Amino acid sequence: MAPSLELYENGVKDLPIKALTANAQGIPTVASVEVESPEKHDRVLAVFRAFIADLCQQFNGGHPGSAMGMAAIGIALYKYVMRYSPKNCNYFNRDRFVLSNGHACLWQYLFMHLVGVKSMTLQQLKSYHSSRTDSICPGHPEIENEGVEVTTGPLGQGVANAVGLAMATKNLAAMYNKPGCEVVNNMTWCMIGDACLQEGVGLEAVSLAGHWRLNNLCVIYDNNSITCDGTADVANTEDMNAKMRATGWNVLDVHDGNSDVPAIVNALMAARTSDKPTFINIRTTIGFGSSKAGNAKTHGAALGVDDVANIKKSFGLSTDEHFSIPNDVYEFFADVAGRGEEHEAEWAATLQKYKDEHRDLAQEFGLRVAGRMPADWKQCILPKDQLPTDPTPSRKSAGFMTNLLGEKVNSFLIGTADLTPSCHVAFNNKVDFQSPDLRTACGLDGDYSGRYIHYGIREHAMCAISNGLAAFNKGTFVPLTSTFFMFYLYAAPAVRMAALQGLQQIHIATHDSIGTGEDGPTHQPIALPALYRAMPNTLYIRPCDSEEVAGAFVAALEATETPTIISLSRQALTQYPKYSSREGVGKGAYVFTEAEGGDFDVTLIGVGSEMCYAMQTRDLLLEKYGIRARVVSFPCTRLFEQQSRDYKQSVLKQQSGKPAVVIEAYAANGWERYADAAVSMRRFGKSLPSKSAYAYFGFGAEVIAPKIKALVEEVRRDGVGILRGDFRDLSGALGVGFEH
Amino acid sequence: MAPSLELYENGVKDLPIKALTANAQGIPTVASVEVESPEKHDRVLAVFRAFIADLCQQFNGGHPGSAMGMAAIGIALYKYVMRYSPKNCNYFNRDRFVLSNGHACLWQYLFMHLVGVKSMTLQQLKSYHSSRTDSICPGHPEIENEGVEVTTGPLGQGVANAVGLAMATKNLAAMYNKPGCEVVNNMTWCMIGDACLQEGVGLEAVSLAGHWRLNNLCVIYDNNSITCDGTADVANTEDMNAKMRATGWNVLDVHDGNSDVPAIVNALMAARTSDKPTFINIRTTIGFGSSKAGNAKTHGAALGVDDVANIKKSFGLSTDEHFSIPNDVYEFFADVAGRGEEHEAEWAATLQKYKDEHRDLAQEFGLRVAGRMPADWKQCILPKDQLPTDPTPSRKSAGFMTNLLGEKVNSFLIGTADLTPSCHVAFNNKVDFQSPDLRTACGLDGDYSGRYIHYGIREHAMCAISNGLAAFNKGTFVPLTSTFFMFYLYAAPAVRMAALQGLQQIHIATHDSIGTGEDGPTHQPIALPALYRAMPNTLYIRPCDSEEVAGAFVAALEATETPTIISLSRQALTQYPKYSSREGVGKGAYVFTEAEGGDFDVTLIGVGSEMCYAMQTRDLLLEKYGIRARVVSFPCTRLFEQQSRDYKQSVLKQQSGKPAVVIEAYAANGWERYADAAVSMRRFGKSLPSKSAYAYFGFGAEVIAPKIKALVEEVRRDGVGILRGDFRDLSGALGVGFEH
Repeated sequence: MAPSLELYENGVKDLPIKALTANAQGIPTVASVEVESPEKHDRVLAVFRAFIADLCQQFNGGHPGSAMGMAAIGIALYKYVMRYSPKNCNYFNRDRFVLSNGHACLWQYLFMHLVGVKSMTLQQLKSYHSSRTDSICPGHPEIENEGVEVTTGPLGQGVANAVGLAMATKNLAAMYNKPGCEVVNNMTWCMIGDACLQEGVGLEAVSLAGHWRLNNLCVIYDNNSITCDGTADVANTEDMNAKMRATGWNVLDVHDGNSDVPAIVNALMAARTSDKPTFINIRTTIGFGSSKAGNAKTHGAALGVDDVANIKKSFGLSTDEHFSIPNDVYEFFADVAGRGEEHEAEWAATLQKYKDEHRDLAQEFGLRVAGRMPADWKQCILPKDQLPTDPTPSRKSAGFMTNLLGEKVNSFLIGTADLTPSCHVAFNNKVDFQSPDLRTACGLDGDYSGRYIHYGIREHAMCAISNGLAAFNKGTFVPLTSTFFMFYLYAAPAVRMAALQGLQQIHIATHDSIGTGEDGPTHQPIALPALYRAMPNTLYIRPCDSEEVAGAFVAALEATETPTIISLSRQALTQYPKYSSREGVGKGAYVFTEAEGGDFDVTLIGVGSEMCYAMQTRDLLLEKYGIRARVVSFPCTRLFEQQSRDYKQSVLKQQSGKPAVVIEAYAANGWERYADAAVSMRRFGKSLPSKSAYAYFGFGAEVIAPKIKALVEEVRRDGVGILRGDFRDLSGALGVGFEH
Repeated sequence: MAPSLELYENGVKDLPIKALTANAQGIPTVASVEVESPEKHDRVLAVFRAFIADLCQQFNGGHPGSAMGMAAIGIALYKYVMRYSPKNCNYFNRDRFVLSNGHACLWQYLFMHLVGVKSMTLQQLKSYHSSRTDSICPGHPEIENEGVEVTTGPLGQGVANAVGLAMATKNLAAMYNKPGCEVVNNMTWCMIGDACLQEGVGLEAVSLAGHWRLNNLCVIYDNNSITCDGTADVANTEDMNAKMRATGWNVLDVHDGNSDVPAIVNALMAARTSDKPTFINIRTTIGFGSSKAGNAKTHGAALGVDDVANIKKSFGLSTDEHFSIPNDVYEFFADVAGRGEEHEAEWAATLQKYKDEHRDLAQEFGLRVAGRMPADWKQCILPKDQLPTDPTPSRKSAGFMTNLLGEKVNSFLIGTADLTPSCHVAFNNKVDFQSPDLRTACGLDGDYSGRYIHYGIREHAMCAISNGLAAFNKGTFVPLTSTFFMFYLYAAPAVRMAALQGLQQIHIATHDSIGTGEDGPTHQPIALPALYRAMPNTLYIRPCDSEEVAGAFVAALEATETPTIISLSRQALTQYPKYSSREGVGKGAYVFTEAEGGDFDVTLIGVGSEMCYAMQTRDLLLEKYGIRARVVSFPCTRLFEQQSRDYKQSVLKQQSGKPAVVIEAYAANGWERYADAAVSMRRFGKSLPSKSAYAYFGFGAEVIAPKIKALVEEVRRDGVGILRGDFRDLSGALGVGFEH
């Protein structure tokens, strides 16, 4: 008996919630989704839970508890409610599913197997926690593997990703759907445990989803009252439902989440009809079936051979069989694949109609589906002759490019963590991404077609939501975020997840370095560049003028599987049209200027807003001491590392036996690869006007030049070898404070 | 007329809230706090606001809007409600005040001036945004300056700090107060703007404060409905009061926060009598008095000469006078200092009585007030002969020390972000820090004397709250936190604030490196050490065995103005009792073993859990190739940098012309200072069992030794100079994925 899904096939999304009947618990019921008998569900649940127990027992590790506890939720989702296609997991208009409590991944892997996702074989399932290097069943779900929308594990990230996925649908729908042609209308389902409601990034994202009234988002709370430390109430006693309601969510309860599949189906179906995002609070028992059920001990360890046997016995299964999935259980899910093909066919038909009736839009939509930007995006990057020659803050230079990209390229979703006046990312004719309901509710402009996003003061969620936007379908969106560089430390766990997942995005990090000035040491990054320069698959680019800013954008746009942080100044920067080069930025570092006459005594490495000190020092060295300095601009260490050894030597000339000195107002860590000495920061900054802050820390040609003269003379006398193991700190007189 | 404060002087804290009468808005009224007339308040408010406008106009910058908007709140706090002593800002039992919206610091500076804080002269006030390097009026409040409890600026941190300050009071009170001898009973007041209710760290902290029922905490919400991007509702439309109630807070409203000082006083006084933490939602107007009042433009920029003049005119002040504080305004605050002296005298009398009646407790309390640990803390660090010799996970080795410190030294508040079973920080006879109310409410053990803290899955708040604990009175508490090392990325903004403020704390960071295994790349840190090694005033220590763990604890405990991260393995580590040295850890790096016979061909640098690969490679190099390797253990780069040049050369012998190779399963960034080549991680990790993960990435003597042989031969042939500018990557065969 195939369940009848015609009610939502026919657009229950548009029905008001009152059209649904209510069950005894007050949960709206979608009567037309026929579900199988309780006996059949119990049978599948038993086999499912025993299999999970077997999998964890195999290598004596893993996370059985929540996977077993959430079994009935999985039946509701994978068998009855989600619109997806197991044979083609990437079909564009599929419902997105995020397992934010990623440690419960076995749950997802096993359901994927049961519904027939091809790559998820029995052998693959059994590779969980094995030493198989080609396993697609890692300890947390990974985006590279079929059927996984986002990599999860660090808690709270997934729920923010889900908000991004739901926004993506809303934006595409508002941009492209036409009456009778809904080319995008998928739901996003997100499974969470307690952690996602405790982690700040989750709470930030939840606030935004409520504000944006993302009614295509349903968060399913596996409320088993247990965390690693025991009962969840050792650290949390708030009224979660009331909190979610206050945050703008539709809240539903399911009281028996262990076995009442129909109740779960009803709640999930009700989520499809809500005018707000839906939070379903489902009570489950962690490790259901185990003798340790309801105990934290089932969370992160195998249950033990005896317990696994007892589980099977209590479920009426054979204790001798392991990894057993009888045919009737496969048959239970057998209709899912066919229904998935119907979804695909339906979408294909809609798309064909769309192509016929809305040719231009369909063409653009086709590009978006293919994950490609319009070919002319490079025209948004201003040529050199259109760039300013007067001193200009690089945040302003970046604004020229951002504003054109925002205005001209629909792939760009441009956002800010409440720093519109400071970050220069607001573009002409921008429309805010807002719920149209808020026009009447509080007079706000904007709608879901908007591509300018006010994230509020929520840097972490901004970047984690951007991961969801970028993961919706790689290339469909290029999220651009903005805040002060310092606050990308708040967002770092999310930027890291983008790098790990190969998600393109551009982070406009303004007010970098101590040049940000009066706001003081709390706002002046010192160590943060060391993090981003060390982070795999991440570009941290510090351009020194407008031309290098243009180069940074080209690099960021070409890095289609990489997040890029463009690090920009608050203060005006000297422009170097004679020296700076966007192509040079693409190589990470390049010769800014050779010494006059060719021969040289020292290489100065200038970076970002400190380039001016390199150039001024160069002039003063020649004028005052006759010392010939060449200058290298070094906006991006990672791009430089990708160059050939020959190119690297041609830029740095370290084989010349001449010293190299880097000038940057950050911790010097990492520059030792390219330099013998640094004018850098050994302590936190100081609240002073920009120029005074630089002067205070000894950034100034008149302070730097004599130190370099001494270094050059020492090397002339004793050879460059004396610098080996003796990296020199040429920083200026230090102020008071911690000088470790 | 001095206000009568006898009601709370006499212990209104113990009165039920119903004992207070209610005003028209339903706010309880403490009738006995007599306030001055509205006219007097208006006069002070006018002068205050004009002065703020002048200060920002002076250097055409700063944050006037909220400082002006919050003026009436300041009168209520500084004149009527807070118990403090302007002449002795550090008096132990003072009420703590945190300006979490730190950009409004002028507000605090000006009130400190008005109530007579000695260092806060008129000249100092006028140094705000100046180039004076001895200014005590930086762009955000800084802990080094008199009267500032914590440095704030990065939003959301302050409210978490305030939670820590309130916990500190609760814990000390539960430990030391006796009937008739309340030696600690201060309140904590925290001023916030919208951001602290949007930032995740603030939301995490708010949840915990509600859970812990910290009724000695009052958060004052400057609700001006404005953020940088315009009206706050562009990014937030939740019902904040309902959300706070759901989170366990007492919620009060004040509708005219611009001028109704009595209403604010009433609400603040009611906070003193609540059985929960109190959230006062006060409606104010940003930039009150300005022609741009209520507009985001008043937030972060001077108002302009004309507007400043108009403000004065509208307030009935002379437009010709600048920075003017007439005598009657000083007189208005003149009683505060005397009352402060009375508070001090009262506390001194209580303390004397306590000393007389509770001699032993008083002695211990005296040590706590002096910020000193008992002299015998070093006995908690096990001597070498009591350490295990069998392979032991370093998280377990650390547990030996943590558990003794927890059990024996009351200064330690030991917490975990829900990883009690993994981090080994739970100690014998521990008592949980919990509200005693929760015993009846949900059967939880614990009370406020507890020193084991369940922070829930809230790493960021855990560390930000720890900053408050440590800042309560330096040395009174040494907060110890624990979670997986990877999740100290979530907490990094708070760890950074500890480093900036010179706050001692110990972070037990377990499951470091790729050795954490099956949880996969999401849980395996690669770039994170680069951040903490670059962060000023931070110790990141990676011990290689139990003896080095002991050394890490000694270093951490001796660093009384520095946060320390002790980075520990999940997996069992070989113990090296013949080689490892706690004294060596104190120097950052030391010779683990010289090559046999003394002469050597290569230096191998082993770090933390990868020491075993260095030692095994050393043996194999000799056995198979006759290559003599010495091994250096390098647990902490920052401690090493503090050593003499001679010591450094004696350890690394870089002048020998022999190559050095570091072996660590992290990004190599920063090791270039000490090594010529690295066996390291160039990409994110992989979900595999610990040993398989290491093997996958080429960590193993049989893989490393031949590469080092080739390097040694190359250097023998061409000299070590060939490595200059050519740092070698000796990492193993890489797997699939992003290899940037």
